[in-house]
Amino acid sequence: MSETESVVDTFTGWAALAAGAPLQPHSFDPGPLGAEEVEVAVEFCGICHSDQSMIDNDWGNARFPFIPGHEVVGRVVRLGAQARGLQLGQRVGIGWYKSSCMHCSSCMDGAHQLCGKVRTTIGGSNGGFADRVRAHWAWALPLPEGLEPSLAGPLFCGGSTVFAPLLEHDVRPTDRVGVVGIGGLGHLALRFLNAWGCEVTAFTSSLSKQDEAKRLGAHKVVASNDSAALKAIAGSLDFLLVTASADLDWNALLGTLRGKGQLHFVGIVPSAIPVHVFQLIPQQKGLSASPVGSPRHMATMLEFCARHQIVPQVELFPMSQVNQALDHLRSGKARYRVVLDASR
Amino acid sequence: MSETESVVDTFTGWAALAAGAPLQPHSFDPGPLGAEEVEVAVEFCGICHSDQSMIDNDWGNARFPFIPGHEVVGRVVRLGAQARGLQLGQRVGIGWYKSSCMHCSSCMDGAHQLCGKVRTTIGGSNGGFADRVRAHWAWALPLPEGLEPSLAGPLFCGGSTVFAPLLEHDVRPTDRVGVVGIGGLGHLALRFLNAWGCEVTAFTSSLSKQDEAKRLGAHKVVASNDSAALKAIAGSLDFLLVTASADLDWNALLGTLRGKGQLHFVGIVPSAIPVHVFQLIPQQKGLSASPVGSPRHMATMLEFCARHQIVPQVELFPMSQVNQALDHLRSGKARYRVVLDASR
Repeated sequence: MSETESVVDTFTGWAALAAGAPLQPHSFDPGPLGAEEVEVAVEFCGICHSDQSMIDNDWGNARFPFIPGHEVVGRVVRLGAQARGLQLGQRVGIGWYKSSCMHCSSCMDGAHQLCGKVRTTIGGSNGGFADRVRAHWAWALPLPEGLEPSLAGPLFCGGSTVFAPLLEHDVRPTDRVGVVGIGGLGHLALRFLNAWGCEVTAFTSSLSKQDEAKRLGAHKVVASNDSAALKAIAGSLDFLLVTASADLDWNALLGTLRGKGQLHFVGIVPSAIPVHVFQLIPQQKGLSASPVGSPRHMATMLEFCARHQIVPQVELFPMSQVNQALDHLRSGKARYRVVLDASR
Repeated sequence: MSETESVVDTFTGWAALAAGAPLQPHSFDPGPLGAEEVEVAVEFCGICHSDQSMIDNDWGNARFPFIPGHEVVGRVVRLGAQARGLQLGQRVGIGWYKSSCMHCSSCMDGAHQLCGKVRTTIGGSNGGFADRVRAHWAWALPLPEGLEPSLAGPLFCGGSTVFAPLLEHDVRPTDRVGVVGIGGLGHLALRFLNAWGCEVTAFTSSLSKQDEAKRLGAHKVVASNDSAALKAIAGSLDFLLVTASADLDWNALLGTLRGKGQLHFVGIVPSAIPVHVFQLIPQQKGLSASPVGSPRHMATMLEFCARHQIVPQVELFPMSQVNQALDHLRSGKARYRVVLDASR
């Protein structure tokens, strides 16, 4: 079936007109399509905590009116003249980053997420709480057959954030891996790591999530604020993935690692972590952190998800109820990711 | 030539009788030789800062009388019944560790330095400022032909401490590597890394060492306390090895790393390092640390040193002048390692 381009003059979405304001309908002229860009008709878009942060201008870099959204699933409706590897009508996903320079050493190394000119989908441009959104072809990843489009959006930001470190740090199926925080990112990490073959320990401050964590793939659950429980598993983990954005007892958490173990952060922890070198030296421990994955990390994740039937656990809202959806996220009750349906 | 065992009733060395006291001659009964132990007649022994710390009881775990010394070169004079791989008369070196359990998961992984029962040469026993010293056979490493015995001692502690991370972190000859601190450990790191093929940058607080650092193998020298100089090389290094035991501008030093760069500590930095996760996330940086190397790390280092004719730059003192040698070390004027000659 051959498709033809669908050209529109304006994009329409849900914008905050000022910091913290409720979103309201907003149209804008997206300008000419870049030669290497693709334009996607949005079908679904996940809500990430960073959308919330940008709406509230927590980081001081939001420009209003501002349309959030960077966990997009939709169909390619336009292709720039130099866009590679995609076809009109193809279903793709777009995440936190939407373009990179493609020629710096990081891009040429396949680490496009480290490009100095990398641009976020919602930084200085409008995102996916809209009818259309654009990205460089490299950052629009084809959705494999068998992954439900209404559930896949959060894989492109939250998913790739917790999947990429497993590749980058060579986490092995024989490893014992911990996940701190069972939320939008953490619940996906549990599913990934269970399918990865690891022994998976979930760390949560609310033991009410214990059964839930096990259902999501954890073999063990430990209270992250229980010093005795942390001590009981001292020296046992190879890799500890911190998805929580809270100040925790890092000394005790470092203590759960065994020799050569790695404490890895994907959440922005508010305070500085006081690292004493003597905590790291004797057992060769390390601290590390990472942003979202590269395009290849995402493609590998999608293939893995399709094979293992891994999708986020989401709550669907009509996009017309975006403000209710945002309130639900703010309440902390989302289990575990909220996705907007652009058709409603 | 067949050698016969040489059995003595007492060992004689130079001991501190109390914390901080000058060393004086001291004899003791070493007890029976362990089945897996070897006994070595000391020819040379380097002085490490940790000998100084133990004499001064800085860590509160010294027992007096105490004979320091853990950079030993000498000849095997006795072999326990189960000692493997060594022969009487063979020249070996012994470093910071003298035994490990040999059967825990770390030992069986070849990471004997991470064994929970690892014992140091001078922790709870007497060291190498003596006529004889003992170690488990696995921790007495044969000195290859072509390495000058009077210079090799410091390789077994200081050398292995800076060599092991190059293996553990897969430092590549194409990498740009920095070394912070040009002392006993740092000067060896410069020599190793130059032979390793890397672009080597020395960081020193005293630019008077600039020419010296280049002679030792550095291609560039940067003042570690010059913020502008650190900024000028921002984002350029793959690996930064900190051998200094001082509180430095860690934020600026982290800034010199490029994507996926690692800040690696082998020196005990006095204060906690305040690590903000947002300093690590965007470029996937990490912090790590390590103790001395494993027996295999040491064997690999010795082979590398013999091939590249790498030895420490040492100042030789007769062992009878051990107190003068210690004073020289305390003065900070040692260039770069002091070795005691047991024959004088």
